[in-house]
Amino acid sequence: MNILPSHWYNIVPDLPKPLPPPRDPEDDYIFSRIELLPKLFPSELLDQEFTAERYIQIPGEVLDAYRRIGRPTPLVRAVNLERLLNTPARIYFKREDLSPTGSHKINTALAQAYYAKKEGVQMLTTETSAGQWGSALACACAMFDIRCLVFMTRSSYIRKPYRRILMKLYGADVVPSPSDRTEIGRRLLMENQEHPGSLGIAISEAVETCMKDGSAKYAVGSVMNFVLLHQTVIGLETMRQLEEIGEIPDVMIGCVGGGSNFSGFIFPFIGNRLKDGDFKNTEFIAVESKASPKMTEGSYIYEHGDTAGYLPMLKMYTVGRSYVPPPIHAAGLRYHAAAPILSLLIKEGLVKAVAYTQEEVLEAARVFARVEGIVPAPETAHAVKQAIVEAEHCRRRNLKKTIILCFSGHGLLDLSVFEEYGTY
Amino acid sequence: MNILPSHWYNIVPDLPKPLPPPRDPEDDYIFSRIELLPKLFPSELLDQEFTAERYIQIPGEVLDAYRRIGRPTPLVRAVNLERLLNTPARIYFKREDLSPTGSHKINTALAQAYYAKKEGVQMLTTETSAGQWGSALACACAMFDIRCLVFMTRSSYIRKPYRRILMKLYGADVVPSPSDRTEIGRRLLMENQEHPGSLGIAISEAVETCMKDGSAKYAVGSVMNFVLLHQTVIGLETMRQLEEIGEIPDVMIGCVGGGSNFSGFIFPFIGNRLKDGDFKNTEFIAVESKASPKMTEGSYIYEHGDTAGYLPMLKMYTVGRSYVPPPIHAAGLRYHAAAPILSLLIKEGLVKAVAYTQEEVLEAARVFARVEGIVPAPETAHAVKQAIVEAEHCRRRNLKKTIILCFSGHGLLDLSVFEEYGTY
Repeated sequence: MNILPSHWYNIVPDLPKPLPPPRDPEDDYIFSRIELLPKLFPSELLDQEFTAERYIQIPGEVLDAYRRIGRPTPLVRAVNLERLLNTPARIYFKREDLSPTGSHKINTALAQAYYAKKEGVQMLTTETSAGQWGSALACACAMFDIRCLVFMTRSSYIRKPYRRILMKLYGADVVPSPSDRTEIGRRLLMENQEHPGSLGIAISEAVETCMKDGSAKYAVGSVMNFVLLHQTVIGLETMRQLEEIGEIPDVMIGCVGGGSNFSGFIFPFIGNRLKDGDFKNTEFIAVESKASPKMTEGSYIYEHGDTAGYLPMLKMYTVGRSYVPPPIHAAGLRYHAAAPILSLLIKEGLVKAVAYTQEEVLEAARVFARVEGIVPAPETAHAVKQAIVEAEHCRRRNLKKTIILCFSGHGLLDLSVFEEYGTY
Repeated sequence: MNILPSHWYNIVPDLPKPLPPPRDPEDDYIFSRIELLPKLFPSELLDQEFTAERYIQIPGEVLDAYRRIGRPTPLVRAVNLERLLNTPARIYFKREDLSPTGSHKINTALAQAYYAKKEGVQMLTTETSAGQWGSALACACAMFDIRCLVFMTRSSYIRKPYRRILMKLYGADVVPSPSDRTEIGRRLLMENQEHPGSLGIAISEAVETCMKDGSAKYAVGSVMNFVLLHQTVIGLETMRQLEEIGEIPDVMIGCVGGGSNFSGFIFPFIGNRLKDGDFKNTEFIAVESKASPKMTEGSYIYEHGDTAGYLPMLKMYTVGRSYVPPPIHAAGLRYHAAAPILSLLIKEGLVKAVAYTQEEVLEAARVFARVEGIVPAPETAHAVKQAIVEAEHCRRRNLKKTIILCFSGHGLLDLSVFEEYGTY
């Protein structure tokens, strides 16, 4: 069987209710954020954002790139973890950590770089904090030979040298944000030369760059429909791999920052349930950090995707775009909201959400690393924690469930977290 | 075809001349190093060290472990690199970087941990500097549930926190060397509390531990015959993968510190040439660092494998065990000698050796990362450099050669090197 799919799957036409469209703000209306979108994104990506087509063909060049970075990725049974937990459950993990930059982010980065190159865009620009997204985009831009400008929050620029070096090695221009490249950056630097920056400021700098430079576009690592669409390559592969070994998932688990790895992992399964009635007994569990509990404690309202409010409002579960989470190290889960499609599925009761503390998930990561040999990223550790909780439940009730988790990335560039928390 | 082999291949019975046996020193004879070996190594490993059997069955538990850490590893064509170099050559790389600790070292670590566990050994102990070997052994010990004590040179312990944290996360006891755990360590600490340590001192501490603690054995990352034997899993897989795609290698390239990844990669091919006359036009090229040029400038003499001289003398190409290489960052290539079997093959003209500077190889690594997306380890970069040299030669002469390189590890935990050398 060919595991790598030829098409991405768009869940929008199969949703139980229409997806609420993006909106301009009513009170704070300085300019239309929706009219700004064509300045920010390549037109084929905007088409994908709003399409009602169910299947979108993956371009040959992107398929080639997927193969080169190791797709299809393996689905592996965590035999040693099962043994340690003495559980009758079977636990599988989908290894998105095997990509060159160590996470699933490359799945959409390659697609965005390809469409940008095809439309003659000279440069992609984006923001990054932890650096997972920035390094995936830098890698993709190198592979498609297109320039890349990354605004990295100054605090991370200083504290995360490895990610910064990795992006530069790929040829990206990496600048600490706020920077002197933009008006908003210069203004903030005037106030404080050592400004630590924030994701919101970095987004603003990237967006401002595109507004002023017609040859540049903006690349985005999560939340938007087309990003989730590209990530369905994870779930489509998983579905074929499960078919091959004759397994039907009882529980599917993933961590949620903006929601792209989890959405890409589960949408093909939820889509089959909605269309054909398959997987109707499968539970879908989204795991977030208690430090940014949008799905378990937030509101389902219209909210900007960025802190500054430059991007359109989307209907999402959110803790508010001005919410400042306490410092946690799973930086990829600090985002204030969950992607609109995922939020709708939570609202409709198709996806369940749970939250854990940093200490709980790092301990789960330690256990996993010791028995399976692979160190999960702090973000991925949230999914690992929930898999362990499920497997322990199965032990107590003697349930032979099949548990599948999306192993979104490895923690080799985040090892200092384990030391800071004393998790050995 | 089943790519993962069922047996390791032992080249010793097929060598063109008998392998010179290990020897005790004549002048500096305080104790017999050869009689010490059974105290240091599990008996099955010592049997493998001296066996004349051509094929050694890989135990089922080790095969299972190989599968869990991602074996068989992919053999990938570097299409983008070929395009960049505009070469008619085809370049393939064998991805040993995909293991959980990022290098080929795990192939022997798993075998050594398995045999130790089987023979009731309570703890394995070893030395590490860069940390590639130490983290592979820590991972293997975690997977086979055996204690692990790593003596890490104090300078690396301080300068390489990520590798140290990784080993601790796997549950290993990691101590800066010289340490207060051994007599030699305490003596050196008395002289200098901040002693930076050396690989030689760390080996001495590990060996002393085994001499005093009958439940502990010593694990070794390269040089010895049984280590090279375990690494033949790389070459055996590569041979089957080449058969599947109908390629015959014209050039096979690998980097050499002690020689284990390169030996494991080429021995099955050289063995077939010696036995059956296959691969008689294949060139085998060992690449070393100009900072430790044992193969290109050293002598083929009897020499201790360790700096302190606790281990038996072996006939090897060496720059002398007291040679202190200038500081280079490919720490894995600082070793003073090349493994005895590899040295014999060089002496007999079956393997050619070349050397490069750190600057040359880091630039090659940068080029590779930009087009293929994967960052080579500084050690691996030596093999990448030679592959580029070969491919450029093919362009000038219009030769359609098939070039295969052993991609021994990734550089994600060594990224600071690129910054120190300004290689962006």
